[in-house]
Amino acid sequence: MTAFPTLSAKADIEEGAVLAPKFDRDGLVTCVTTDAGTGEVLMVAHMNAESLRLSIETGEAWYWSRSRQALWRKGETSGQLQSIVEMRVDCDQDAIWIKVNIGGDGGCCHTGRHSCFYRVKPIGTAANGALTF
Amino acid sequence: MTAFPTLSAKADIEEGAVLAPKFDRDGLVTCVTTDAGTGEVLMVAHMNAESLRLSIETGEAWYWSRSRQALWRKGETSGQLQSIVEMRVDCDQDAIWIKVNIGGDGGCCHTGRHSCFYRVKPIGTAANGALTF
Repeated sequence: MTAFPTLSAKADIEEGAVLAPKFDRDGLVTCVTTDAGTGEVLMVAHMNAESLRLSIETGEAWYWSRSRQALWRKGETSGQLQSIVEMRVDCDQDAIWIKVNIGGDGGCCHTGRHSCFYRVKPIGTAANGALTF
Repeated sequence: MTAFPTLSAKADIEEGAVLAPKFDRDGLVTCVTTDAGTGEVLMVAHMNAESLRLSIETGEAWYWSRSRQALWRKGETSGQLQSIVEMRVDCDQDAIWIKVNIGGDGGCCHTGRHSCFYRVKPIGTAANGALTF
């Protein structure tokens, strides 16, 4: 178990230099992963304290798989390991942003695509209208 | 109340052209908001069905404020309205990515900064080491 500190004062959380993640009731923070080269958003996933610690200390992206309820070393089986170029935390410390380079064939999404965000919802249309690829 | 369809077959969810958001137990999906010009991640927030519908139909970013438990038209008081250039949905439809242009003074974070991700956690250091600005 990783003991990140807990902060309560808003000023400390928002303006301090202490990483004190605000884990949700399931013990998770949201992680946004972007391509360090292109800036494209690749995926949104979650980290618990242990995966966050591993990500920071090893420089490889580790997540928490909510479906498998297990630590998830991204790319362990596919070879699509994510090497972290930079990690940032947001103002209230409940979200992490990592910029990564991907190993193997460079893919990220389990569907085989580079990014999980391969469908567009056209703006200004009916909300229940079609997505486009 | 907005009735987005619910899909159960994995192939329909991942490869179909129907927007069927997988709202969590609180009725929310995660939204990543990036700067349409620079690609920078500006914020991570949440949308319920009604804010997602409003965002799609109006082209302005509407979120759900978990702290206030209320619809949140981003920028309504600050003038930092977010005009959506593109909206994407991820493979399992539990996350939304919007690219926005910001009105007013161009800020996004309530601390006055352009992005909420203004602090870096250096990789390869101790997890409980300091953040940098």
